[in-house]
Amino acid sequence: MKIVVDAMGGDYAPQNVVAGVIDAVKEYHVCVSLVGLSDAIELELKKYSYPKSLIEVIHAPEVVAMKDPATVVIRQKRQSSISVGMALLKKEGYSAFVSAGNTGACVAASTFILGMIPGVDRPGIGCIMPSLKKFTFIIDVGANTAAKPEHILQYAKMAKVYAQSVLGRETPSIGLLNIGEEECKGTGLEKEAHKLLEEKEPLFIGNIEANEMFVGKSDCIVCDGYVGNITLKVAEGLAESAGKLLKREIVKNPIAILGALLLKSSLSQAKKSVDYSEYGGAPLLGVDGLVLISHGRSSPKAIKNAIRSAKEQIEHNVLAKIKEEMVK
Amino acid sequence: MKIVVDAMGGDYAPQNVVAGVIDAVKEYHVCVSLVGLSDAIELELKKYSYPKSLIEVIHAPEVVAMKDPATVVIRQKRQSSISVGMALLKKEGYSAFVSAGNTGACVAASTFILGMIPGVDRPGIGCIMPSLKKFTFIIDVGANTAAKPEHILQYAKMAKVYAQSVLGRETPSIGLLNIGEEECKGTGLEKEAHKLLEEKEPLFIGNIEANEMFVGKSDCIVCDGYVGNITLKVAEGLAESAGKLLKREIVKNPIAILGALLLKSSLSQAKKSVDYSEYGGAPLLGVDGLVLISHGRSSPKAIKNAIRSAKEQIEHNVLAKIKEEMVK
Repeated sequence: MKIVVDAMGGDYAPQNVVAGVIDAVKEYHVCVSLVGLSDAIELELKKYSYPKSLIEVIHAPEVVAMKDPATVVIRQKRQSSISVGMALLKKEGYSAFVSAGNTGACVAASTFILGMIPGVDRPGIGCIMPSLKKFTFIIDVGANTAAKPEHILQYAKMAKVYAQSVLGRETPSIGLLNIGEEECKGTGLEKEAHKLLEEKEPLFIGNIEANEMFVGKSDCIVCDGYVGNITLKVAEGLAESAGKLLKREIVKNPIAILGALLLKSSLSQAKKSVDYSEYGGAPLLGVDGLVLISHGRSSPKAIKNAIRSAKEQIEHNVLAKIKEEMVK
Repeated sequence: MKIVVDAMGGDYAPQNVVAGVIDAVKEYHVCVSLVGLSDAIELELKKYSYPKSLIEVIHAPEVVAMKDPATVVIRQKRQSSISVGMALLKKEGYSAFVSAGNTGACVAASTFILGMIPGVDRPGIGCIMPSLKKFTFIIDVGANTAAKPEHILQYAKMAKVYAQSVLGRETPSIGLLNIGEEECKGTGLEKEAHKLLEEKEPLFIGNIEANEMFVGKSDCIVCDGYVGNITLKVAEGLAESAGKLLKREIVKNPIAILGALLLKSSLSQAKKSVDYSEYGGAPLLGVDGLVLISHGRSSPKAIKNAIRSAKEQIEHNVLAKIKEEMVK
C-alpha cells in the first residue's frame, strides 16, 4: 500500500504537507510518495527524523496555483504534482492520492487521467458534516455544479457504499437537500431527483432541510455541487466567525475570561467534534481511483488525518465496492 | 400609521403574535390591526391590559396552514388572514403587513394582491445576517427559486436602497454570493449576473464566498432564492446545534458548569448579536407595499421586533425610495 501525496498542494505547501506526512508514516506505518518540486521537499524532509523506507520523493517540475483554472492540469501544466501524482495512481502498488491543492484541478485531473467508474457520469466530492448524532456524509460539495437528476441518484448510491464501508452504517438513510420537506419543493432539479430517488433507491427517506442536517436526520445527504459547496462554506464561515465573536465578548470581561478557562476542555471537546481537520480529506467519488481532497488551509494534522482516511478506504476496499454497486 | 399583523401566522399563533403586538403597541405607540379569527384573538387580548385605541381586530374566517401550498391564498382561501390582511394594506392609512405565517403564501398573496413595483419582475426576501462587522443584508432568501440575472440586478438595487435608508450605510457595497472569487465561478446564472452587475451597478464589488459573508466583506449580498434559503437554514441549523453540542459537553463536567455560569453574560451578548428575533421580520422587497415576514417559530419578542422594523421602514420611506430607484 503506497499513498501518493501532492507535496505542493495547499496554502502552506510543502511545509504542512511534509509535516503531516512525517506524522502519518510514524503513526500509521504507511508508505507515502511525496510528489512535487523535489528540492523543496527534500529541504523540508531534512528537518525530521523518520523511517526513510516509508517515504519516497517523486519529482514533478510544475506547480498548480490555487487560483489556476481547473483545466490547467490537462492543458498547460501536465507535469504538475497533481498530474504526475494522479498518473502514478494508475501504476500497480499505488492505492490512493491525497491533495490539499486546487480542488477544481484535482477533479479535472482525476476525471481525465483516471477516468470514471462505469455507471457514474460525474464525480462528486463527499464530506463529513458534524451533527448532534454522529455525523452526516454529504455529497456533492463542489465537483459538479451542473448536476442532473441521474447524477444525484449516482451520488446516493456511492454515498450509501461509503457510509456502509467507511462509517459503519449498515443501512444508511439518504436524504435530498432541499428547502422544504414536501416533494414539490425546490428547483426543477430537486423535484426530478426526488422522483428518481424514490423510484430507484430504497434507502431514500425524502427531502432534508438544511437546518435539519445538523440534527443528524439522515446518514447521507445528496445535492448539487453548487448548493453543497455553499452549504459547506456557510458552515465553515459561521463556525469560525462565531468563535471569534465569542472571544471578542469574553475578553471584555475578566470574570468571563476565568469562565472560559474553566470551560476550556468542554470547548475543545465540542470544537474537536466539529473540526474538519479531524476528519481528514474529502473523498472524490466516481473516478476510477481513490482520491482525497484536503482543505487548502490544511494543517499538518489535517494532512495526517487525510492519509489515515485514505488508508481506511483502501483497507475497506471502498473503490471496488462502489464499482460493484454502480453496475447493479 | 397602522400596521396590519397576521394574527394566525406562525407555529404559536395567535398566542405569540398577540403577546408580541401588546408589547409593541406599548413600547412603540403604533396602531396595530390584528387580522384573523376574531374570537381567538379577543380571547388572547383579554389576558392583557393595554391602550385599547391602539389595537383593532379584523375578522378573517380562514387560516392558511404552514404546510398549505403557496397558491392557496389565491385559490381556496381568499378569506384567510393573509389575503384579508394584504387587501387591507391597499387601503389608505394602512402602512405595512407583518406575518409569521406560511412564507410562500405571503409571497403569493402580496404579488397577486399588491402587485409588483414598476421595474421589478420578482419579489425577493431580504434578511439580516450577523457578521463580525455590523451585519450583512442578504436577498433573496427564498421568494424566487428560479432567479434570472436581471432579477439579481433588481435585488442589488433594492438592497442598496434598504441598506442606505434602514441600515444607514451611505454607499453600501454589494457582493454576489458564489463558490469562488473569480468571475468564471458558479453556474450560468452567477456568471451572467456577475456580468450584468458589473455593467450596471457601480457599488458591485464582485463575488463573495459563503464563508466570507460572516466576516462582513460586503454590506449586501445578492443571490438566487434557492441558494439563499439554504444559506439561511444552514446558518440557523448550525448555530442551534452548536449551542446544544456545547451544552452537552458542559454538563459532563462540574468545573465546566461553573465556567459556563461565569461566561453567561458574554455568551448571551454574543448570542444576542446572532439572534434572528432581535432583527424582527424579513422584508419582502419588490411588491407594491411594505411586507415583513417573520420566522414561523417567532417568539413574542420576534413579533415585537418585526413591528419595530415595519415602523422604521415606514418612517424611512423605504417603499417610495425603492420605487424611485427602480425607474432610474
